[in-house]
Amino acid sequence: MKLGTVWLDGTERVVVASPGDDSRAVVLDRGITLQQLILDGPPAELDRSPTVPVSDLEWRPPVPRPGKVICIALNNSANADRIMSGPSHPAAFTKPASSLLGHGQPIRLKREYGRVHPEPELAVVIGAGGRDISRDDALGRVFGYTIINDLTSPTMRAEDTFHYRAIHPRPDGAEGIEYVDTWVSYPGRYKGTDGFGPIGPWIATADAVPDPHALTVSCVHAGRLVTSDSTANLMHKVPDVIAFMSSYLTLEPGDIIAMGTALKPSATGGSAIQNVDLVALGGPIEVTISGLGTLSNPVELR
Amino acid sequence: MKLGTVWLDGTERVVVASPGDDSRAVVLDRGITLQQLILDGPPAELDRSPTVPVSDLEWRPPVPRPGKVICIALNNSANADRIMSGPSHPAAFTKPASSLLGHGQPIRLKREYGRVHPEPELAVVIGAGGRDISRDDALGRVFGYTIINDLTSPTMRAEDTFHYRAIHPRPDGAEGIEYVDTWVSYPGRYKGTDGFGPIGPWIATADAVPDPHALTVSCVHAGRLVTSDSTANLMHKVPDVIAFMSSYLTLEPGDIIAMGTALKPSATGGSAIQNVDLVALGGPIEVTISGLGTLSNPVELR
Repeated sequence: MKLGTVWLDGTERVVVASPGDDSRAVVLDRGITLQQLILDGPPAELDRSPTVPVSDLEWRPPVPRPGKVICIALNNSANADRIMSGPSHPAAFTKPASSLLGHGQPIRLKREYGRVHPEPELAVVIGAGGRDISRDDALGRVFGYTIINDLTSPTMRAEDTFHYRAIHPRPDGAEGIEYVDTWVSYPGRYKGTDGFGPIGPWIATADAVPDPHALTVSCVHAGRLVTSDSTANLMHKVPDVIAFMSSYLTLEPGDIIAMGTALKPSATGGSAIQNVDLVALGGPIEVTISGLGTLSNPVELR
Repeated sequence: MKLGTVWLDGTERVVVASPGDDSRAVVLDRGITLQQLILDGPPAELDRSPTVPVSDLEWRPPVPRPGKVICIALNNSANADRIMSGPSHPAAFTKPASSLLGHGQPIRLKREYGRVHPEPELAVVIGAGGRDISRDDALGRVFGYTIINDLTSPTMRAEDTFHYRAIHPRPDGAEGIEYVDTWVSYPGRYKGTDGFGPIGPWIATADAVPDPHALTVSCVHAGRLVTSDSTANLMHKVPDVIAFMSSYLTLEPGDIIAMGTALKPSATGGSAIQNVDLVALGGPIEVTISGLGTLSNPVELR
């Protein structure tokens, strides 16, 4: 089953794709939210309900206000030979809900954002959630999967990086401090700016995605194929990420985990996602994941 | 007026401090939330309402589920001489709502978190919110102020730092890429772990805080004064931070902005907040800000 959220007559409504035909959908009753369906389970049989074409729908993020969006960094085997040092476990940042944007909605960018490039990713939508979830239990806590475009400004990333002498306690355990040469980068702007999280259109429920690590991921910019990758290339798999992250952060129903960027360049292109500067080049920018659908957004300069 | 949120008989209830006596409070009717009061304005006259002692209350974060918690990094003049390079504007990360903890609630830590130290901070609670807010309008968008203890694990910070060759477009504008030596650190765990955001107990409404840059901030660990600082030492002031951040991230009612760590060591101590490893030393850890109150939390090892 595929579920989404749209604006209709001034309210948020949940839509369910017609089986086998994502172009039409049943609109559920007012007051039903995706957050509530995640808690209560997907709706029952809708076969005889009237459907509407989805092409005119005004899409919202499928979970409009998730408690958190955890994004796993540098989690593609194509990164491995570029990492000189880093953790062997999943490393993460969070994106605020205010950065999310529905399918089809314009990504509004300002010149002062510098360069802004797409990052096509599989996103996990947490169902039951919990704390200290074991690897074996992890997939059972997944409500479904969706697509996220983890827009990134490397310009702001560079601007918001500090090289400084961090204060540490003395390593011998005595009173007093020492200084340690440290680099820190802060993703509040470069990952969290409004519009930096196009997501959707659909959540495919977990039963419809037998293997989340066998999905093709492609990214098309203005009609040109940029990325052609597979979730097989994720280094840390969904159960590992859920187990690891939940030993630190309680996962709540509707939380999103973006699994890391698919960035293998397409065989036909000479360019990388980092070449696709949406501020300079505009849109549309499209991410397709097999079985999930296509997330497409135009770009506007504000 | 001072407002907070507590658990009472299994539901969240808003409490209002008795004027001039934070030790007693009026409990507002069921169903009233702080988020709603931020939208509608604080409650009217409560002078004749019965009060309860607050000492037995089970505190929640004053805004229990803010849309985002924006934390400003390295924003104290005491940092200035340790920064070798970095931005001249506010740099930020976000903490998820799931990391927040009410006053008096135990901070539950695990040995594998490594070192965890307190960071005492003034926090702004956004009222009307908005996007592209001017400096002149900024203070008018503040609902009030509270206290946050921005717990930090420097161990996890070091673990979740990558030194890698980032992909950039060629600077000459031609097709193709080049590699740029880059350090990135990801705060998902080291700032976002459960319990890393004790906050409260009270929000003092903005009218009760005539100058947010004239407040004393102290941090007491296990009865020993560690930090004795003032919000006068914040480099980026509240209006600057609101104006700058809102030109990237829409500020929503109930959003929290943690203004940056007060870290000037007390004159009597030989130690810094970084010496206070809560995993090794336990609690309680206390932050007091003049006019706002005291946020105190015990520590438990899980």
